[in-house]
Amino acid sequence: MNEMMIGVDIGGTTVKIGFINQDGEILKKWEVPTNTSNGGKAIMDDIWKSIQGHTHSLNISKGSLLGIGIGAPGFIEPDSGFVYEAVNIGWKNMDLAKEMKERANLPVYVQNDANIAALGENWIGAGNGAKNMIAVTLGTGVGGGVIANGSILNGENGMAGEIGHIKIDPNGIPCNCGGIGCLETICSATGIKRQGIDAVSINPDSKLAKFYEEHGKLSAKDIIDFAKSGDEISVQIINNTVDILGRTLANMATIINPSKIIIGGGVSKAGVYLLDLIASSFETYAIPKLNDVCELKLAELGNDAGIIGGAYLVKQNVK
Amino acid sequence: MNEMMIGVDIGGTTVKIGFINQDGEILKKWEVPTNTSNGGKAIMDDIWKSIQGHTHSLNISKGSLLGIGIGAPGFIEPDSGFVYEAVNIGWKNMDLAKEMKERANLPVYVQNDANIAALGENWIGAGNGAKNMIAVTLGTGVGGGVIANGSILNGENGMAGEIGHIKIDPNGIPCNCGGIGCLETICSATGIKRQGIDAVSINPDSKLAKFYEEHGKLSAKDIIDFAKSGDEISVQIINNTVDILGRTLANMATIINPSKIIIGGGVSKAGVYLLDLIASSFETYAIPKLNDVCELKLAELGNDAGIIGGAYLVKQNVK
Repeated sequence: MNEMMIGVDIGGTTVKIGFINQDGEILKKWEVPTNTSNGGKAIMDDIWKSIQGHTHSLNISKGSLLGIGIGAPGFIEPDSGFVYEAVNIGWKNMDLAKEMKERANLPVYVQNDANIAALGENWIGAGNGAKNMIAVTLGTGVGGGVIANGSILNGENGMAGEIGHIKIDPNGIPCNCGGIGCLETICSATGIKRQGIDAVSINPDSKLAKFYEEHGKLSAKDIIDFAKSGDEISVQIINNTVDILGRTLANMATIINPSKIIIGGGVSKAGVYLLDLIASSFETYAIPKLNDVCELKLAELGNDAGIIGGAYLVKQNVK
Repeated sequence: MNEMMIGVDIGGTTVKIGFINQDGEILKKWEVPTNTSNGGKAIMDDIWKSIQGHTHSLNISKGSLLGIGIGAPGFIEPDSGFVYEAVNIGWKNMDLAKEMKERANLPVYVQNDANIAALGENWIGAGNGAKNMIAVTLGTGVGGGVIANGSILNGENGMAGEIGHIKIDPNGIPCNCGGIGCLETICSATGIKRQGIDAVSINPDSKLAKFYEEHGKLSAKDIIDFAKSGDEISVQIINNTVDILGRTLANMATIINPSKIIIGGGVSKAGVYLLDLIASSFETYAIPKLNDVCELKLAELGNDAGIIGGAYLVKQNVK
């Protein structure tokens, strides 16, 4: 019996798709471009045709497919699989689950992209089946997913776990969400870069300023690399970033009391260097009894977390 | 069939006990003093003898009692009903569920006191069965309970929902928990009083300072009353308090996405005046989509929330 699930992770540029077995192994994965033109109308057909093509060429029988689990960015109603809005894709009021069911005649489950990535990490990644887990994605923005009592928290209208929009500084930087001083304005790649450019303008003779002048650009990775090499201004930026991130994670842990906090996304590629700093800040702020049971870990599944989590969504629901 | 549950709410001074029916109606409630001497050894016998006495005098048959739901302060492992420590009571490593089962020969369920109060409010109080709810108790300290996906969050070692220990100000006041600048150091009755005494020392000619001099003491209620009457310094204290509380609740809502936030405890007796200010601050900081679905309400069950929640704990588990 070779039952398998289809995981789909819809992003602004590509859609990742995979056939995944009951053990979480990827049997086959591939990508199709996300066609955002015309309100993203073609995306559903593109996905389904591509799945059909691979089902054919791999000689997979329809009967072995248990269902499709889809992650999409934006505001989603998980019970119905309805997407209110997904700005990056062009969707508005898109009945994603219904549309896909009509094409595939299979069970379809939908979650937002951060939540399925958290589910994937929880299943076969760094989460190790933790009943209580927080996943944070430090990328262009800061995303998050929370598992409590063994289930993804969706909340009343699918907005739970939006870690990036925790308000840190009432006098801070405006955020894309319309708020002021959100975590994402400081601890994302964008936020670290902004801190770097601010620091450069105040310290025009610094190593960082010279690098910026020479290269005409400055990335979060550059700043982290400078910090690793001991550059004082960069160290200050990273210290400020991990202080705020560690404190915010400690505050989240005060609510959720997790056994695992998983750090993923582009910024987390700075690896153990960053993880250790975040964990040290977390320890400073967390009640000892919270810290005692909580392990901070780097995400393990990279870009596959979404399709694996999508598959798990099917596995959880179909059995 | 007159099945009923026994709710027990153990506090530092008294133990509240009640017989409660399936509709959440209190058939009989009473209190016994909490005998904290000798490590609180007598408390279990005191509770059980008192229950037996009332069972007798009310002519209740043992068969109609479904079980006992107990709330206790401190660090509790809810699955086993084991109390690691309950400082106010003197307990350390107290196997509460086991001890009570041995006496009563009934199913026994245990939660911490803030969580059973939240369960009670959720069942027949202000929560109205909300699947996602945050309860905050503004008393001597700040307590909390969180319901997500329809269940109380306990977390990995029973520490979930400890709202009072969210870190607000890294340069703030030391908290009883060992941390610095916890919510409870600002937004509890104690915190409001402290803000008042600080303000009085800076403004010795103020109305508040004169009141303090005259009466030799200053309570959170005094400061709230002065604020209601428009006293500028008191208004500033209350504005600061509700600004921080509303922001913290908005940040919690960013994680939980609740439909109800219930405000209880002694400070909440300031009523609609305080509630409206907190709700307005919440609206300032919450993502609009979170605010749209979330109602802030005053707790409705007062001191009965604990025994009613204890009864609900039995109802949830026995059925």
